[in-house]
Amino acid sequence: MRRKLALLTMCGLVVLGITTTAPAHATGDERFPEVETTRRGGPPDPGEDVLVIGHRGASGYRPEHTLAAYELAARMGADYIEPDLVTTADGVLVARHEPEIGGTTDVAQRPEFADRKTTKIVDGTPVTGWFAEDFTLAELKTLRAVERIPELRPHNTIYDGRFEIPTFQEVVDLSRRLSRELGRPIGLYIETKHPTYFAEQGLPLEPALVKALDRNGLNRPNAKVYVQSFEVGNLKQLDRKLRVPLVQLVGASGAPYDFVHSGDPRTYDDLVTRKGLAEIARYADGLGPALDRVIPRTDDGGLGEPTALVDDAHRVGLDVHPWTFRAENEFLPTDLRSSGDPAEWGDVFGLYEAFLATGVDGVFADHPDIAVEALRSARTTGTRGATETVEATVGG
Amino acid sequence: MRRKLALLTMCGLVVLGITTTAPAHATGDERFPEVETTRRGGPPDPGEDVLVIGHRGASGYRPEHTLAAYELAARMGADYIEPDLVTTADGVLVARHEPEIGGTTDVAQRPEFADRKTTKIVDGTPVTGWFAEDFTLAELKTLRAVERIPELRPHNTIYDGRFEIPTFQEVVDLSRRLSRELGRPIGLYIETKHPTYFAEQGLPLEPALVKALDRNGLNRPNAKVYVQSFEVGNLKQLDRKLRVPLVQLVGASGAPYDFVHSGDPRTYDDLVTRKGLAEIARYADGLGPALDRVIPRTDDGGLGEPTALVDDAHRVGLDVHPWTFRAENEFLPTDLRSSGDPAEWGDVFGLYEAFLATGVDGVFADHPDIAVEALRSARTTGTRGATETVEATVGG
Repeated sequence: MRRKLALLTMCGLVVLGITTTAPAHATGDERFPEVETTRRGGPPDPGEDVLVIGHRGASGYRPEHTLAAYELAARMGADYIEPDLVTTADGVLVARHEPEIGGTTDVAQRPEFADRKTTKIVDGTPVTGWFAEDFTLAELKTLRAVERIPELRPHNTIYDGRFEIPTFQEVVDLSRRLSRELGRPIGLYIETKHPTYFAEQGLPLEPALVKALDRNGLNRPNAKVYVQSFEVGNLKQLDRKLRVPLVQLVGASGAPYDFVHSGDPRTYDDLVTRKGLAEIARYADGLGPALDRVIPRTDDGGLGEPTALVDDAHRVGLDVHPWTFRAENEFLPTDLRSSGDPAEWGDVFGLYEAFLATGVDGVFADHPDIAVEALRSARTTGTRGATETVEATVGG
Repeated sequence: MRRKLALLTMCGLVVLGITTTAPAHATGDERFPEVETTRRGGPPDPGEDVLVIGHRGASGYRPEHTLAAYELAARMGADYIEPDLVTTADGVLVARHEPEIGGTTDVAQRPEFADRKTTKIVDGTPVTGWFAEDFTLAELKTLRAVERIPELRPHNTIYDGRFEIPTFQEVVDLSRRLSRELGRPIGLYIETKHPTYFAEQGLPLEPALVKALDRNGLNRPNAKVYVQSFEVGNLKQLDRKLRVPLVQLVGASGAPYDFVHSGDPRTYDDLVTRKGLAEIARYADGLGPALDRVIPRTDDGGLGEPTALVDDAHRVGLDVHPWTFRAENEFLPTDLRSSGDPAEWGDVFGLYEAFLATGVDGVFADHPDIAVEALRSARTTGTRGATETVEATVGG
């Protein structure tokens, strides 16, 4: 849908001094900032230059994919909240990172659902547990969320048992309420999870998503909405149905599962060649690469030198939003760790600085407040772009 | 200034269905919610029933008494941010919990200030270190804040070295900016630290505070401002100069230092008798007791039974804002701890539930987001007041 026209538009906007993230940020109706775009002309506001995407909500502080996690992310300054979508047996889109819900809810403690435990093949791998698509929404609503990685985020366990699994509609409603309450638009950065798998279950996600965006008036170019996927086929399909920007997710290794499934030999490595990126730019507006594709790690696990990916992607008009920025040593390059304790926090500010210097356009963050602070700091110290004249608003 | 008139006014407001916190919450100008009161007639908004005071900012998440700590507290939903005030050599009010700044800044690492290290008697106790009043503001501004209790809050150390010591004026400016930005008034809950000590240093805090509130248009009954002190004499003095509500802080033991200093034998125990409370009500509007004065601990350190303090204070028209709610096991009653690790978080929700049931009017919280969630939860489950009909906005 975008193709050459989008590229031309983008070049025009670049001349006007607007960044290369044009399609996602065309000027919207500014009278009432519900779920609308933020990027406009004029001097940049704090946080406006690089998007902060609250990954699974503020999942560093709350059990992921709960309304509480999304709300905290928005309050902490995230531009977007990021619901991952799966479906219930009765075809309702709900927010979970995986169809298997044993790791993020208390379902294993519910004797009434003991017989739902089963083994399924998800993207070629056997997974044992409880699956969202085997529960009605009413049944899912009786469950409560728990922290997925309590050994790394023990603080978050104080919220175990307090929050429901939200429906996608509840997430949309929350973004609207928070947009009004906070006086700035809280966007939705929606991921379709395992599209081939759900199609095989007879519960494809895409028609439900299109319908939901249509129904909520969010299927339009200036809605503050992204749709992302690790697969390619469903993004191409969605490109014909959706008017919002699309983002191709790219794993650190492996291949899109729909390629594997159809016998297409191409891998994610092929997708990030210049040829691959040009092809992505035909149906998508952004690229969501694993961190290591932007800055690989050295042989001893330290932070290495950046690849050409950001420049290559920008050259074909794709924004780059890498994932995932996390504060815990477990997830940091070895040279940014603070100790041998995997749960302690290391020099995540160092990580942000290195990535901001590559010119990325957005960051998926489990701790959106740290991302906001890192952006603020980068603006203050001039790490990012000498043309900006944003006041330091906190601290220094 | 309040005395009988205040009590009568309060009774009138109670008849009108407004809670007993009247003087602090008289209806203000609602057109532009800068630093104004929130409490109004009509159905209560989330968080309106019990005040959330961001103790030293969101000090559970950022080095205390930094603009970043205050800002996060406000974003997390705190009604008030709480600056403690000391003074510089040149008479500028700055935010620190103590005159001694060695524990909360990097001053010990600054060779240029090595000769400022000294020993002083603070409220009768010798303290060795660096003192705010021995530095000009320009000198203090070269320092950077560090986490005060890194062993209990290791995550916060990633912010060490990033933030300045803020002046009181910067805190006022921040509250204004955040009030505009968040569309709700962010109040100031200001503590004068060690009034007798600073008077002895020839740098009394009170004239500077009165002047600052006057200059900022905040010395008026409907300004969203409290002033609190552990001493009595300075609150009585301030009662003649200030039109904002005053709060008498009450320690778990000991006596106001101005009493000790002048040979007055009364202790904090005397202040919380019915007679003592009636006397406080002559100059103050609220009581800020240590948690144990509302719910003492049992002999083995568990959570005991509530005292009559909240009811006794309400009877004379005093609001009750106990301190300090913290999530770490170190600070929790033994029966609410999650493990033997003092830094891990325990059942602080259980603590909130017990205190909300006593009818307290506000809470000093190091983690304002947890306080907000606890209040939300209490409203949803009806723990607090059956007359409320607030929607559950998150989770359940």
